[in-house]
Formats: sequence, C-alpha cells, structure tokens
Amino acid sequence: MKTIDLNCDLGESFGTYQKGRDEEILDYVTSANIACGFHAGDPSVMRKTVKLALEKGVGIGAHPGLPDLIGFGRRPMQISPDEAYDMVIYQVGALYGFIKSEGGAMQHVKPHGALYNMAAKDEVIAKAIAEAVYKVNPELILFGLSGSQLVKAGRQTGLKTANEVFSDRTYQQDGSLTPRTEENALIVEEEQSVSQVVRMAKEGKVNCLQGMDIPIEADTICIHGDGAHALEFAQTIRAGLTESEITIERIEKSLK
Amino acid sequence: MKTIDLNCDLGESFGTYQKGRDEEILDYVTSANIACGFHAGDPSVMRKTVKLALEKGVGIGAHPGLPDLIGFGRRPMQISPDEAYDMVIYQVGALYGFIKSEGGAMQHVKPHGALYNMAAKDEVIAKAIAEAVYKVNPELILFGLSGSQLVKAGRQTGLKTANEVFSDRTYQQDGSLTPRTEENALIVEEEQSVSQVVRMAKEGKVNCLQGMDIPIEADTICIHGDGAHALEFAQTIRAGLTESEITIERIEKSLK
Amino acid sequence: MKTIDLNCDLGESFGTYQKGRDEEILDYVTSANIACGFHAGDPSVMRKTVKLALEKGVGIGAHPGLPDLIGFGRRPMQISPDEAYDMVIYQVGALYGFIKSEGGAMQHVKPHGALYNMAAKDEVIAKAIAEAVYKVNPELILFGLSGSQLVKAGRQTGLKTANEVFSDRTYQQDGSLTPRTEENALIVEEEQSVSQVVRMAKEGKVNCLQGMDIPIEADTICIHGDGAHALEFAQTIRAGLTESEITIERIEKSLK
Amino acid sequence: MKTIDLNCDLGESFGTYQKGRDEEILDYVTSANIACGFHAGDPSVMRKTVKLALEKGVGIGAHPGLPDLIGFGRRPMQISPDEAYDMVIYQVGALYGFIKSEGGAMQHVKPHGALYNMAAKDEVIAKAIAEAVYKVNPELILFGLSGSQLVKAGRQTGLKTANEVFSDRTYQQDGSLTPRTEENALIVEEEQSVSQVVRMAKEGKVNCLQGMDIPIEADTICIHGDGAHALEFAQTIRAGLTESEITIERIEKSLK
Repeated sequence: MKTIDLNCDLGESFGTYQKGRDEEILDYVTSANIACGFHAGDPSVMRKTVKLALEKGVGIGAHPGLPDLIGFGRRPMQISPDEAYDMVIYQVGALYGFIKSEGGAMQHVKPHGALYNMAAKDEVIAKAIAEAVYKVNPELILFGLSGSQLVKAGRQTGLKTANEVFSDRTYQQDGSLTPRTEENALIVEEEQSVSQVVRMAKEGKVNCLQGMDIPIEADTICIHGDGAHALEFAQTIRAGLTESEITIERIEKSLK
Repeated sequence: MKTIDLNCDLGESFGTYQKGRDEEILDYVTSANIACGFHAGDPSVMRKTVKLALEKGVGIGAHPGLPDLIGFGRRPMQISPDEAYDMVIYQVGALYGFIKSEGGAMQHVKPHGALYNMAAKDEVIAKAIAEAVYKVNPELILFGLSGSQLVKAGRQTGLKTANEVFSDRTYQQDGSLTPRTEENALIVEEEQSVSQVVRMAKEGKVNCLQGMDIPIEADTICIHGDGAHALEFAQTIRAGLTESEITIERIEKSLK
Repeated sequence: MKTIDLNCDLGESFGTYQKGRDEEILDYVTSANIACGFHAGDPSVMRKTVKLALEKGVGIGAHPGLPDLIGFGRRPMQISPDEAYDMVIYQVGALYGFIKSEGGAMQHVKPHGALYNMAAKDEVIAKAIAEAVYKVNPELILFGLSGSQLVKAGRQTGLKTANEVFSDRTYQQDGSLTPRTEENALIVEEEQSVSQVVRMAKEGKVNCLQGMDIPIEADTICIHGDGAHALEFAQTIRAGLTESEITIERIEKSLK
Repeated sequence: MKTIDLNCDLGESFGTYQKGRDEEILDYVTSANIACGFHAGDPSVMRKTVKLALEKGVGIGAHPGLPDLIGFGRRPMQISPDEAYDMVIYQVGALYGFIKSEGGAMQHVKPHGALYNMAAKDEVIAKAIAEAVYKVNPELILFGLSGSQLVKAGRQTGLKTANEVFSDRTYQQDGSLTPRTEENALIVEEEQSVSQVVRMAKEGKVNCLQGMDIPIEADTICIHGDGAHALEFAQTIRAGLTESEITIERIEKSLK
C-alpha cells in the first residue's frame, strides 16, 4: 500500500510578530519544517515549535534559509557553495540544540524559499547543502523538489531523500514548477489539487501544463500553514488521500 | 601536582572584518571559546575556527553572547530567564553543528561579555544558562567567573564547572572583579600578572585591592587573543606557570 | 478652548509580518509615530506609512527605538549617551528621507519602548536624545512622558515639547506610570479611561493610584493601533473629548 | 584646464571592528562615500566619519548598499525596483541626519558593491535608484560607473551625474570592467595605473583589454582606502595627475 508524508513550514513567527497557525496545523501533518532564525523564527519560537511538534508526534526538520529576514528568505542571493554549506550547518545545529534539549531527534532538513529553489537547479549549491546535512548527521533525510538537483545530490552524498510535490502548483514538462510570475502557476480549485496529489502519490504521474503526463516521484506533500483556509485545505487533502487508500505517515517510517 | 587550563576567546571575526590572531594564539591555550554569531562570529568564521582548534588539539567551547553585534555583546540587556535559556541553546547548538561536521566534540560553554557578567551576579539568569547547557548535553563543562552565581548554578544543575580567573584584572574583597570603570581595575605589569596567576593556581589565594588575601578557586585562566602583545603575554604566562610547576592542560582532563 | 493631540505608533509591520491597522487608525489620530527600522518597520513599510499619513493629513513623527527587533525595542539596554544620540539621529534621518521624498514635513520625534522609558527617568540619556533631535532640526517637537526628564531636557535644549498622557494606564503619586508588572497598571474600563483623559486635558489633574489628585500636563494622548478594539476605543476617546468640548488637533497647531 | 574628482569609500568600520585608514585617506581625496549601515558602518561610525570629512573639506556622499553585513554588500540579491528605491532613500536619509546635525551638506550618492554593479547594467534598478536620489534632493550628484545605465538613468531623471573610472581595473571593449574573476582584471603596476587614469582624464580614452582605444568619460576616480599601500598609491595618483596638469577638485565644483 502506498504511503505518503505531509509536511508544513512552521515556526515562522518572529519576536512579537505572529505567523501561521502552528498548533492547529500540526494535527494534520506528519513532518514539520521549522525555521531557524535566518529568514524567520527566533530562539524562543524555535523552542516552542519543537516542543509542540514533539507533543503531537510530528517528525521534526530544520528549515534553513538565506540570511534575509526582511525578504523572508525569498530573494535569491548569489552565495558561494561554502557559504551555503556553512549557513546550513549553522541553522541545522541551532535547531538541533532545541530538539536535543527537548528530548527529541531530528528527522529531516528542507531548505527554504530561494535557497530551496537555487538548490533545485544549481548542482553545486545542491551538493554543498547535501554535504552539510550529511556531515552533521548522515541519518537525516533531505527534502527537495521532486526530481531536483538537490534530491540527486542528496542521494549521491549518501543521504536518504524525500521527493516533495505540491498540491497547489502546476508543473512544466521538465518537471519543474510553473514560476509564480506566470499565469496558471497556482491551482485554486480544491478538487483539482486533491486529484493531482492523489495521482502523483498513486501513479507517479502528473499532468503538466503542456498537456501530457510526466513521471514524478512523490514522497512528501507540501501543505501551507498560513492563510485563511489552511486548516480546511489540509483536511481536504487528508480526506482525499485516505479515500484513495494512501496511508499518511511520517517520512522516516516509509523510507525505512 | 596542580594543573590549570588556559582559555581564550576566538572566532570573533565577522564577514570581511578581521579580529584576533586566532591561528597563533591557539598554540598557547588549551581551551578555545568560539563566538556563535550573536555578538561576533559568522557561520564561515565558526567553521574555520573549529577546524583550527581541532587541528591544534585545543578544547572547544561555545561562547554565546547577547544579540548585539554593534555592541560586541558588552552592553547589558534586560532579558528574561527564558530568553537567556533560548539564546544559549541556539548558539550552543549552532556551534555543535560545526564541531560535529568537523568530527570533534564540544568540551565547554562560557557565556560572553555582558551575559557572563549578568550570570555572575544574577542567580536567575545563571540558573537559566546552566539549565540550557545541561539540557543540550550534561557532559559539557560550564565556565564562569570564579565563585560566581554561574558556577554555583552549574554545580546545582549537575554540570562540571570551571572557575575562571583573570591575570590582568584586580579583585575586590568579595571576590568580584574591580569594574573597568574604576582606577586600578587593570594590572599592566606583566610580572604582577604572572605572580597573581601563579598564586591563585597554587595557593588558591589572591591579594585583593583592599589589601588582604582572599580565597579563590582557579581552574582556568583567561588569556586575551587580541592586541599587540597578546602572543608575548601568553608566552610569559605559560613560562611563569611552568616554572612554578603548574601543569597546563585542557580542563576536561583535570576535571576528570 | 482646550485642544489636544491624539498620537499612535504606526508602521510597525516588518517584511512579510503585518502589525496594526494603520490605514484605519489614521482616521482617528492627529499624529503618527512611525517606526524607523530598529525595533520595527522596514524601508518599504516606512514609505507606505508616510504616504498614508500625508494623504490623511496626520502629523508625522519619527519613532526611534533600540536596535532590538526580536524584543520589539522593549528590553532596556545599557547604552551610552553617545550611542543614544547617534541612534536617534540615524533613525530620524532615515524617516526624513521618506517624508522628504513624499513631499511632506516632519512634525515630531517620540522615542519608543525602552528608550522612551529610559529617557523618562535618565537625565543624561534624555539630554542626548533632545540634542540629537535639535541638531537634526530645531523645529521638531519632542514627545515624552508628561513631566519626564525627556520633556525637561527638550525644553532646556530649546525644542518645543509635548507632554504625553495615557488613557489606559494608572499613575503613581510622583506622576510616573504604574509599571506593567504591577496589579492595577492597566485601566480596562472604557468609561474610566475616557474620564481620566478628559480630566487630564481639561483640569490638568489625574487621580493617582494612591488616591489623591496630582497635577499633570496633557498635550497629546497615546492611542494604541493594535488589538481587536483599537478602532472602537479610538472612537470612544474622540467622542468623550468632543463631548467635553476639547478640540482634537495636530500638536503643531496647538503649540504655535 | 581639465579637472577631476578623487573619491574613496569610507566609514566602513562597524562596532568594535575597524576598517580602513579614514582619517589619513581623507587628506588625499575630494569626495567621500560614507557607508550607511546596511553593508558596513553604524550610527557612531557615520557621525565620526561625517565630522572628519567636514573638517577636511571633503565632499560628502551617501554610499547605500544591500542589506548584507556578512557579505559586505558584495553578494548580488534579486531585489525589486521598489526595494532598491526604498533602501536607497532610507540610507541616504540616515546619512543626511548626521550631515545636517554636523552642519554640512550632502554632495552626492554612490551605490555600493553589488548594488553599484546591478545599477550599472540593469536599467530598471538604475532608474529606481536615480529616482530615489532625486526625490530626496534633486541637487544631489549621482555617481555611477562611467557610461553605465546608472549614469544614463541619473541624467534622464534630471540629476547631475559623475562618471566614475578606476585606476586599478582593466576595461572591456564595451566599456565595462573586466570581472574580478577573470585574469588581467586588476592592474598591479602603479605606473600603468597612473597613465591609464591620466589618459582617461585628459583624452577621454582608455586602452581596453582587447587592444583598441575606447572612449570613456572620467569625472571622478575611485581610490581605495583599505590595504597596506592605500595612502602611498593615493599620493602617486595625485602626483601623476598634477604633473599632467589635471586639477583635482570636488566634483560639485567642476560640475557647476
């Protein structure tokens, strides 16, 4: 029977600024990507989010980003592979401190925002990130865009990897996401979202914007924790997957 | 035979800004306190400094500070115990990432600057810091001002502790350092520095500014890594200790 | 006829983090204190807030704070008078850039959070801030806690000053605010808030927590722009003042 | 008689980190580009540098950069035109605060590092920067790479502009600088540097790496204030220009 992981970006509050409905969304996901202070999050938010995730039995991952709080880590920066390596180790280590002090274990690492996108296409940055993760702990699972350079680099480095797919984004013929700047980048109809996700999980295929089916590996689905309908949508996705007899469970179980 | 540890603050460069003669001073000390990015240091500096310390067989410690890069962590801030706890875990974790990825082990934690001074006197802040260190790893050694609240809190928490003494600072009758704002705070004559240190290490006594001998525990001596005469002074201190048959070795050995 | 100014802290959003209902609250106040990027706000938020305030004819002031984004500028830091002077000039200048580029003029400066509180009691910090404001532009109005060291320093320096009073805080016999850490610090009943404000504006008196009336100067009232009832409360205050025949107008008009 | 301006990047120290020989180099240049806190500099450094420049009669300019202290503003970031506009106004305003408080006037604006390079080639970013400068003060002079999009945008916006040339960099056939990543990017021989500069100033020509002479406008020459030979080299350049009967004077005089 096919299994899949549901992940969500969490711990994105900062100081007095609140973001996301972390406590509630944790009831719907199996893996949490926790911001590490560079693009979002702060030490206190990290501790609270780690604690919540442990209480709810959700797999914990580091969500390292570019050092750009104003831009929320979404603005590409031209960094060297060494800089990518170093900023990933720093952030993974910082989150590790909270997981260790709360008695848990880290499950995975998923780069955030522009760093995620750069690592999807740039082989050298992807390799630097994969090595950083491996050097800190070779048991960690590396999350990356399905079929991306990051997933390839992770495998070559010796890491377990998880191919991430998106329910609310359309795909191009080459397996990349349609850029947000283009029309039709987003899927707004819930039904379409659910059926795309179910098909990716069950058949390993997605119908791309150019009209044909392309192969896609789906180990984990990205769920958004922000916005008015986040919880409702998470419920819908879960229901759709369950109806199609896809088991939702933490990636570390299915990868074993 | 009496043994003592020599420690130095390192990894205080930041981006393109250079500070300290890290590579050279590492030949003279047995423990390195490495800045973790809040008051000084950045991910790349941290990696390089950890690597250097490992190559030279020097014990590695985290040197967490207040989040104040402009003030170099020297300006007291009114923080809550939870904030102290969280910022110590974050920084210790971040440094742990580099130590782990370079194949080493963390030996100790020493708070920096204003955080060190606050923890020397404020029982509640001291307790928060000690607990943070303990929760990340109960085997870590906590460095604090000799006889301070931080050392007491460390012991009560169950940590091994190291009483730190200063060669270039005068002491008050209550065992505290004469504040830098007062006259006679600093010892400028090398001979006096060396004899103060030797006596603290051998006899457990220091002649305070008020004229009488007071008891003082000396497990580790703070050496400055910055300034024109840092290396020369380190050599002088080492020579003085050796002549007095005090063995200089890493704190983790003498504490066993 | 008595006149009074209503001021509100605005422009406290940061990057993707939203805070406050700036556009709506601007309909109720006559002066806006705009965050300058140290404790809150960023360049884009500053520009948008300045523009909004100009469109609504609200007097614009700089709201400089301590360099502590995580703590929202509310954690006291031990800074030197020179540091206070420099950080005020920097932030006032930065906001001036946006006011100038949008075709407006700066009306006032009000320190934020811990800097405001420090300047209320610490004569030296108060003087440094007043001089910073004067040196940038001697026509600026300095806002400070009514009767505080900051207002005194402003007058001595040659600035016009505005005594600020609070509708939702209780007062001590010496004219200071009851610290938030104590019981009875906050006034939660709207009716009591309004009557306190009206009395301060009309009679120059407030009934302090110790039970007796004390004299208080009231040039401007602080209104909160955040929270569920901010707009409603602003309306209530305005209605109460108007019923008592107190004219609400920009401080720069009443001070002329 | 031909005149030329000599400019230098100054005020690049930060907190306890020292950079550059500002006081000495100010004796050799006619225009100072002062860092504004985003890539380097802090409020106290800004005040001191402005004061020094005023004492030495050097023209003062803002040197706004990307918000990247670790990368010293040298790492390209993908920012929107609005973000470029806003960050320039913020930084120019902040420096204006210090110039005003010290009794001086701002002469020019020169973007720093990656922002300078982006503005040289990207028409849209160039326009955003030029408009920001114009909106703050249309009398300011905009410095940009000779012949760049930034200089063009400045002219179109209605600003006075200064074409900047480099003594220690080689040029490509299209008038751009040879990227630092390529061989032959730097001119290391002093004699060659001086003769390149003199020829650019006198004849409006430079011999590019491809071998032919290309036209180049030279209003101001960039001098480096950092490094062991900075002062010596500044002297050599001045001597070479004077021998060739080129008058060295502040850009605001020659542009009138």
